[in-house]
Amino acid sequence: MAKKAKKTDPAPVKPAKTRRAKKLDEKDKLTLSLISSTADRVRRSIDQRILPELRFPIRSLSNVKYDSKIGYFELGRGRKARALSVSTVKSFAQTLRLMSISKEMVENDDFATKREAYYVSKNWGDAKFNDQPESDAVMDDIEALASLDGLAREQLRFYPEEHGGSVAGNLIVIDRDPETGADVVIDCTGFGSGSYSIPHSVEHLRFETEAKFVLAIETGGMFQRLNNHKYWKTASCILVETMGVPTRATRRFIRRLSDEKKIPVYAFVDCDPYGIANIYRTLKVGSGNAAHINRFFCVPNAQYLGVTPQDILDFKLEDATHVLAPVDVKRAKDALKNDPFFQAHKAWIKAIDQLVKMGVRAEQQALAKWGLNFVIEEYLPRKLANPKSFLP
Amino acid sequence: MAKKAKKTDPAPVKPAKTRRAKKLDEKDKLTLSLISSTADRVRRSIDQRILPELRFPIRSLSNVKYDSKIGYFELGRGRKARALSVSTVKSFAQTLRLMSISKEMVENDDFATKREAYYVSKNWGDAKFNDQPESDAVMDDIEALASLDGLAREQLRFYPEEHGGSVAGNLIVIDRDPETGADVVIDCTGFGSGSYSIPHSVEHLRFETEAKFVLAIETGGMFQRLNNHKYWKTASCILVETMGVPTRATRRFIRRLSDEKKIPVYAFVDCDPYGIANIYRTLKVGSGNAAHINRFFCVPNAQYLGVTPQDILDFKLEDATHVLAPVDVKRAKDALKNDPFFQAHKAWIKAIDQLVKMGVRAEQQALAKWGLNFVIEEYLPRKLANPKSFLP
Repeated sequence: MAKKAKKTDPAPVKPAKTRRAKKLDEKDKLTLSLISSTADRVRRSIDQRILPELRFPIRSLSNVKYDSKIGYFELGRGRKARALSVSTVKSFAQTLRLMSISKEMVENDDFATKREAYYVSKNWGDAKFNDQPESDAVMDDIEALASLDGLAREQLRFYPEEHGGSVAGNLIVIDRDPETGADVVIDCTGFGSGSYSIPHSVEHLRFETEAKFVLAIETGGMFQRLNNHKYWKTASCILVETMGVPTRATRRFIRRLSDEKKIPVYAFVDCDPYGIANIYRTLKVGSGNAAHINRFFCVPNAQYLGVTPQDILDFKLEDATHVLAPVDVKRAKDALKNDPFFQAHKAWIKAIDQLVKMGVRAEQQALAKWGLNFVIEEYLPRKLANPKSFLP
Repeated sequence: MAKKAKKTDPAPVKPAKTRRAKKLDEKDKLTLSLISSTADRVRRSIDQRILPELRFPIRSLSNVKYDSKIGYFELGRGRKARALSVSTVKSFAQTLRLMSISKEMVENDDFATKREAYYVSKNWGDAKFNDQPESDAVMDDIEALASLDGLAREQLRFYPEEHGGSVAGNLIVIDRDPETGADVVIDCTGFGSGSYSIPHSVEHLRFETEAKFVLAIETGGMFQRLNNHKYWKTASCILVETMGVPTRATRRFIRRLSDEKKIPVYAFVDCDPYGIANIYRTLKVGSGNAAHINRFFCVPNAQYLGVTPQDILDFKLEDATHVLAPVDVKRAKDALKNDPFFQAHKAWIKAIDQLVKMGVRAEQQALAKWGLNFVIEEYLPRKLANPKSFLP
């Protein structure tokens, strides 16, 4: 239905403008060297008239090992080879092209979302991706490969669509100006009732803080209450809103902050199987089907402040609970039966057991039963007086 | 399963600490006067031994009027009365108690989320809410009542759970310190690769800006690209990420910014029935079943920059499109058939018609087909050179 056939024609694809305002850092160099050595190996094979081959870690639970001292699922030694053949030629070419884009982006200090990378392929002729699951699978392979060298997908400059949660409190984040490379100093005490929104990639950020702990908060409502009452000042802490299951960027932000500044992380979520087995578990040890990225994106030293099943009794929240739905009960039983993390901790087995027997769940905002600011004046001070009581 | 029966008992409900650091503003006074006069009326009836009655606007499409000059669905004159009787005594009491909490919160400069308000009721004895839909319905009535006086729910101090989208660019937001009442100055050019996260309520914010327009962006990926390349500097604008359908806080933020600073708002969303009929339509004229709040939460002067169906042809995006799903087609046809907004604009009827006939949709990131920064270097400059071509 193109009634007016326009003559305007999009410009031909131009190479991205160079806008590298900062020197390559160590991780950038490592990324470029990984890409070059992979390409060199392929090239050498071809020169020697040997069919080239790419080898990737196998990404599945069967190729995962768990050591509770390390604290997250690690990738095993299983590898799959993608040898060049008639049937693999397309995905072979796609892998190399995606790596080549990655090289360009590191050199130009640019990035692409997974979706953009998919669209860029539309100019690759026969090698173009037919749909995004196809490009995502190739990207996951590259990501798993890079993870062996300690590199996350973000270092390859493929960024997630979603950014991170909100932050407020005793923290200075040092970002850099993409044009000039100059430091950009962001004081997270300075946003009034608003907050700082974590960027899509946090690898380049630096931190300064005197805070005693990070409080990772599930709901926007609770974050808002604690921020609007400047609880971060009262308790000398950093508030991070996870908005449900934390995104990659949020997890990585908390992990780097906690590692580099050596401060504990306390999770404050709803007392239900989702809050425990999805939000908290993912924050702490990562997820089973993404073992190749857990080493970067989990926060092994996180602890569970609350709301615990015992809190429902201790703080008399019984009449502010909801009955567990069958899906909740199933989730809880699955955690006990199949999840190596919960199985490794008796305290968790006991707590989940208690929750299932009580048959109810409590939201963190249920504390408002005792007054809107009971959480600030009573609950958090009482819990924080005894961090040893936190669930592991 | 409370094995250790703890003796700790939650403190009794305490009145919230007064923390009003700023004087009541005009809207606060109007809110208090609305609550007092409503309560007085009830009291007078009782003193005269007449059964008291509360009257609320009817919240439904049947009580809505639409004038394209005004630009949003307005509440009609229909009212429903809630007279005190055996069957209404509970909701009557709940309404008064919620209004009484609202009064307290205005006086103490505090707030409650809808969920918190629900939990607070757990201490109301027989008047407590049994579930949140019950409390939400009562709150919606109060909100509709207040809207007649030009007051939004936020002024009653009931805040949404969800905060707003992210902001970056040529804008200074002036918030206030909840403790001291002092101005908090937030420079939205100063967040590096991160951004400013709009608070849950924006009524108290003030703005300073020299920007030429606000660009409301659907996806996190596109916002990230424009922000990381400091497009707000190149184009002298303010970038707002709506994250799909914009929240109340995001819509109100854009509306106030646009009204008070007299700057146009351009929407940049995916070219599909959801982007057009849900995201853009909600931003511009509000939604049908919430007519009592549209006057505050829509942005009548918003215009649709793109991606338009014609853009798919003009920018040769055909091979980067997706086939419209049946649900998309249904949504588009519904818009043409039932939506007074689209029906009022021939240009929209034509555009939606064109989209349905083409049978495809295009995401805003599809522009990456021509290079990652084609959107910055070609697409946006070409579109912005001719704002008159924007869809209404």
